[in-house]
Amino acid sequence: MEIQIAAAKTNKYATSDSGDTLEVVERPNGGVSVVLADGQSSGRGAKAVSTMVVRKVISLLAEGVRDGAAARAASDALYTEKNGKVIACLNILSVDLQSQTIVLSRNNPSPIFIAAGDKVKCIDQPSSPIGTTRNIKPEITEIPLEPDLTIIMFTDGIFYAGDRRGEKMDICTAIQGYLEDEEPTAQKLADSLLNQGLRLDENRPNDDMSVVVLRVSSRSTDQIRKISLTLPVPPLRDSQGW
Amino acid sequence: MEIQIAAAKTNKYATSDSGDTLEVVERPNGGVSVVLADGQSSGRGAKAVSTMVVRKVISLLAEGVRDGAAARAASDALYTEKNGKVIACLNILSVDLQSQTIVLSRNNPSPIFIAAGDKVKCIDQPSSPIGTTRNIKPEITEIPLEPDLTIIMFTDGIFYAGDRRGEKMDICTAIQGYLEDEEPTAQKLADSLLNQGLRLDENRPNDDMSVVVLRVSSRSTDQIRKISLTLPVPPLRDSQGW
Repeated sequence: MEIQIAAAKTNKYATSDSGDTLEVVERPNGGVSVVLADGQSSGRGAKAVSTMVVRKVISLLAEGVRDGAAARAASDALYTEKNGKVIACLNILSVDLQSQTIVLSRNNPSPIFIAAGDKVKCIDQPSSPIGTTRNIKPEITEIPLEPDLTIIMFTDGIFYAGDRRGEKMDICTAIQGYLEDEEPTAQKLADSLLNQGLRLDENRPNDDMSVVVLRVSSRSTDQIRKISLTLPVPPLRDSQGW
Repeated sequence: MEIQIAAAKTNKYATSDSGDTLEVVERPNGGVSVVLADGQSSGRGAKAVSTMVVRKVISLLAEGVRDGAAARAASDALYTEKNGKVIACLNILSVDLQSQTIVLSRNNPSPIFIAAGDKVKCIDQPSSPIGTTRNIKPEITEIPLEPDLTIIMFTDGIFYAGDRRGEKMDICTAIQGYLEDEEPTAQKLADSLLNQGLRLDENRPNDDMSVVVLRVSSRSTDQIRKISLTLPVPPLRDSQGW
C-alpha cells in the first residue's frame, strides 16, 4: 500500500499572514499526522493563535500522546491563555501504522469527507472549536487503513467560498466528480478543490483557505518516502504566513 | 519567485527503522526549515537519537531561535543525555523570508552542494557531528535568496553508496548532469540522486539514505502553498521509521 497526503493553501485576499497553520509530524510509533488549525478571524492575530495550537498538538503527538488527548490539551491551553475569548478550529488527520488505522480528530463545524471507491460519506456530527470552554472534546473517527480510501478536510474558507454571492460549493458532488477521473493524485484533488474555492470567491478569497487530501492506494511501492513543498515568495519583505 | 523543497529517503536494507529523521517546520518570522539528522549506526537506537535531535531543533526554530543556536543546543542536549558516547550528523536548511536568505547549518562531514545556474560548488569545510564534545559549532553558510539556485544535501548513505564495491558516486558530476535537463523539479532531482545511490548499492542500501533538494525559480506564482508526501506502508505490522 501507498499513502499520499497533500495540502494546498492560500491567504485571504490582501492579507500577508494566513490565519490557517498546517504542519506534518512523524508519529513516534509509526506513521504521520497532519495538524490543521484555523485561528479566529484572519491576519497576524489569527496566525499567532493557529501557530500556538498546532505547535502544542505536534509536540504532544511527537511524544506519543494520543490524538484526542492532544486536541483536549490544545483546547485547555488556548482557553487558559486567552480566557476563553479566542477560539480556533482544529483537525488532526493521522495515519497510525501501529493500529493500522486512520484517525480523524475534529474540532471544527466544517465537515470531513471520506470516500471509499466512489461513494462519498460526510462526517458532520456537531463539533465544537477549541478554546471556547473547559471540557471541549474532539469528534473522533477511526477507520481501517485500506486501499481506495480518500479523505478530504479543509478550513471554512473553502466551505463558505462563494457564500457572499449565494453560490456555495456542493463539496460532496465536487469530490465525486474529481474521483471519476483516472486515479487523481492527492495533490491534484487538493489543488482542484482550492481552485474551485478561489473561483467561487472570484480569485479574491474571502477567508484563508486550506485543503488536505489523503489517498490510500494499493499499488506496490519501492519503500521510498518522499516529501515536497512549494512556497511562493511574496514580493513584500515583511510577509510571512504559511 | 517560487521555492521548491523536496526530499526522498529510504532505509538501510532489511531494517524497518531508518536512523535518518527529517522534518519540515514553518519559521515564525516567515519561511521554512528542513531539519535532517542521521543518528549513529542504524535501526531503532539510531532512530531514537535522530528523532530526539530533530525534535529539539524544530521546537527551538519554531520559537524563533536562530539556526546556529538551535544546532548548538541540540549538540549540548545530546552530549548531556549520552555522555558524549553517541553522535549524530545534523543539517539544517532554512529559507528565511525575513532576511531573504538561505541559511545552511552543517554538522556533518558529508558536503552540501550549491548550484547557481549550471555551476556547482561544494561546501565541504571540516565540520563535526554533534554530541561528541562540549562547544560543538555548526558550519554556517548564508546566501541570498535568488532565482536559479539549487541546493542539495544528503546523509552519508548517499555519499558512501557503492563504496564497498569501490564505485562511489561523483555527486558533483551527477548533479551537473541532472541540471542539464529541462528545469528538473526538486523532487525529480532528489529521486534521481537517491535512485543512483540505490543502484550503486545494488538496491540493498548499505546505510539509511536521505536526499534533500531546494530549488529557487523565478517563475511568477499564484500565492498557493503546497505540501505533499508519499508514505509506503510496510507489510510488517511493527514497522515504523520515516
